[in-house]
Amino acid sequence: MSADEERVARAGLSRCSEPEDLAVESAVQALGAARVWELVRGATPTAEERQGTAALLHERGAREPAALRGLDTLRERLAGRAAEADPARDLENVERLGGGLLLPGDPAWPAALDDLGPGAPLALWWRGPRPPGDTAHWLGIVGTRDPTAYGLHVTAVVAGGAAAAGAVIVSGGALGIDAAAHRAALPSGIPRDPEEPLVTVCVLAGGVDRLYPASNARLLRHVAQEQLILSEHPPGCAPTRWRFLSRNRLIAALGAGLVVVEGRWRSGSLSTAHRAAELGRWVGAVPGPVTASTSEGPHRLIREGAAELVVRPEDALEAIGLVRGRVPARQDALPGLAGAGEAAETGSPVDGLSEPEARVYEALPRRGGTSLERLVLAAGLAPDEALGALHGLLARGRAARGEEGWSRAAH
Amino acid sequence: MSADEERVARAGLSRCSEPEDLAVESAVQALGAARVWELVRGATPTAEERQGTAALLHERGAREPAALRGLDTLRERLAGRAAEADPARDLENVERLGGGLLLPGDPAWPAALDDLGPGAPLALWWRGPRPPGDTAHWLGIVGTRDPTAYGLHVTAVVAGGAAAAGAVIVSGGALGIDAAAHRAALPSGIPRDPEEPLVTVCVLAGGVDRLYPASNARLLRHVAQEQLILSEHPPGCAPTRWRFLSRNRLIAALGAGLVVVEGRWRSGSLSTAHRAAELGRWVGAVPGPVTASTSEGPHRLIREGAAELVVRPEDALEAIGLVRGRVPARQDALPGLAGAGEAAETGSPVDGLSEPEARVYEALPRRGGTSLERLVLAAGLAPDEALGALHGLLARGRAARGEEGWSRAAH
Repeated sequence: MSADEERVARAGLSRCSEPEDLAVESAVQALGAARVWELVRGATPTAEERQGTAALLHERGAREPAALRGLDTLRERLAGRAAEADPARDLENVERLGGGLLLPGDPAWPAALDDLGPGAPLALWWRGPRPPGDTAHWLGIVGTRDPTAYGLHVTAVVAGGAAAAGAVIVSGGALGIDAAAHRAALPSGIPRDPEEPLVTVCVLAGGVDRLYPASNARLLRHVAQEQLILSEHPPGCAPTRWRFLSRNRLIAALGAGLVVVEGRWRSGSLSTAHRAAELGRWVGAVPGPVTASTSEGPHRLIREGAAELVVRPEDALEAIGLVRGRVPARQDALPGLAGAGEAAETGSPVDGLSEPEARVYEALPRRGGTSLERLVLAAGLAPDEALGALHGLLARGRAARGEEGWSRAAH
Repeated sequence: MSADEERVARAGLSRCSEPEDLAVESAVQALGAARVWELVRGATPTAEERQGTAALLHERGAREPAALRGLDTLRERLAGRAAEADPARDLENVERLGGGLLLPGDPAWPAALDDLGPGAPLALWWRGPRPPGDTAHWLGIVGTRDPTAYGLHVTAVVAGGAAAAGAVIVSGGALGIDAAAHRAALPSGIPRDPEEPLVTVCVLAGGVDRLYPASNARLLRHVAQEQLILSEHPPGCAPTRWRFLSRNRLIAALGAGLVVVEGRWRSGSLSTAHRAAELGRWVGAVPGPVTASTSEGPHRLIREGAAELVVRPEDALEAIGLVRGRVPARQDALPGLAGAGEAAETGSPVDGLSEPEARVYEALPRRGGTSLERLVLAAGLAPDEALGALHGLLARGRAARGEEGWSRAAH
């Protein structure tokens, strides 16, 4: 079997089978894609081939009689589409669109997809100035198709901030949060040089030429021209409900992490989040008002322990290794998120201090300085206790000794 | 030492010492309150008494020389106030206000305070138609003094819902969230019969007659008349910053759980939440928009794992044992929280189904019925696979068999 036969076979099988078909996957693993492609186009399997496929199907939970009939059932199911399929033409078409087909193991194949195991796609169709490459810093951002102004704002801040810090924003090109995430990642104004690093990837539920939904066609064309569109379906394939659900597993697997911005109690975003968590990916969710139904999905994920609460892009960047160490998790770290009004109530400056430390802190002058003797008197503590507390404050940088004596340190 | 001497002594010590004073607590434990009261009013301690107090202070971390001087330092610190104190008059005053003084171990003493260990109050002053009683269903609700309209709304829904279900809302009587929590618990309109069960408790940082802040005086008078006001300070004592901080530990300890509604990055509410968590109390926090600085405190608590994300009163009621078992955590369980617009996007009905289940579900008619044979064909699965999936759907209540055959079940 030549490399070319393998390409044509996988292209053909991706045209005539649906994603996550365990029978197809088992047959391909047992017999190779080229042989399965022959079989669905009319060749007759040997008893050994039936047995090999059945063994894998059985391993994956199919019961004995069904497993034994597995290869023949598969041939019957796929025969109609296989007869009409023209993988060579599909391959020409994707090249004409400015793209190509990747097989597992190809240099540009995203190894992250292999984490899907038997659910990994047979092949990956791509479109754009360059194939996928390294996915270490890819970050999925998904959410409702019907967002609030708040959700769109937060998406812009999180996706824009993450992309500016080097993350590649992966989403599904849908209306609402998906589109806002792609848009926030794309620099506005001057068209990008295709040589510049990738900033956003759109994984479609149909072929890479089916820019669905139509109202996002302009955005998706932009992504196709400057960024990257991926699909496990050949050009021309229509998106169907099943394909949308299956597509979500690719977004879940391709990102090193996934952030859900808004989504209702039951939603595609939640299923993507659960799939990402199953794959061991970091998952984050942005909270919102409990009075909005769009907050139900993120809050549910956080309550279930499936997602970490995210308030700013840094939370996601840390999780996918783009920020080293923990930075203080203030929400005002980036413009646009909180910050305004922050100074109005910063709480008590003695929070977090022990009782003697709080007393000594209160007794310290803000300016000038005081002697240790006066400090002890003012704090109403025994000298030894006051000195211990002062040491504690020094260690926290809350007290300082200047020329005029002891005082509070700038907090 | 008579019971009356103990009452007078603890009343006197609560007048002249500050809360959480480990030296006072050690001396009282070593020598008894009545003897400490004599000592701070001029009696001379024996070497044995010095040693006994020093041993406890040392146990609690004081260094040797300070511990040895502990009792004398304490006497010096408290002597001035002790000379002016008149505990008998304080006791008369609290009775005139319609209240009393509770000592640890009294029948109405809230045993929950004993969880504070050495930080437990010396005594508890109360005011209202009845003393504390059982605190099993007390629920703390605290938050910023400078809330948003959203925070006030959520407080009303959570505190009102919890009180209606039998929780007693404990808060600090401050402006903002505290006041909203007390108000939501109080039934509006007709004055309450004092015989009715308690619905809200206010823990003040000054005496039970110091209705601070003044702008809440009307609310606090209402609470004093029909509900319950508590303080560890005798009548007349002014609230000070230190006393506010100390008071928070009483709110933390008195509730079986604590909910933080809004609070900034550093705030009294956060310190109350941390103290509650340290005491092993359940802590919840209500999320909000990440764009509001009032959400920083709750989000921080949730991120740190110190608080559970709360979206509705039931979340807190479950935690303090007022709702049995887990009820579905929909946000629209109570009016006012989400629900509106819920039907707009309920997500895909095949979420959570396996691939064959989803295919069979899609192939099932909504009305009427279909045969198994047709179902298998429509689903494009092997009969055995389709039957297995159908079993799965039956188990989830997603498929049903009627007179006309198989169909979807109402979801």
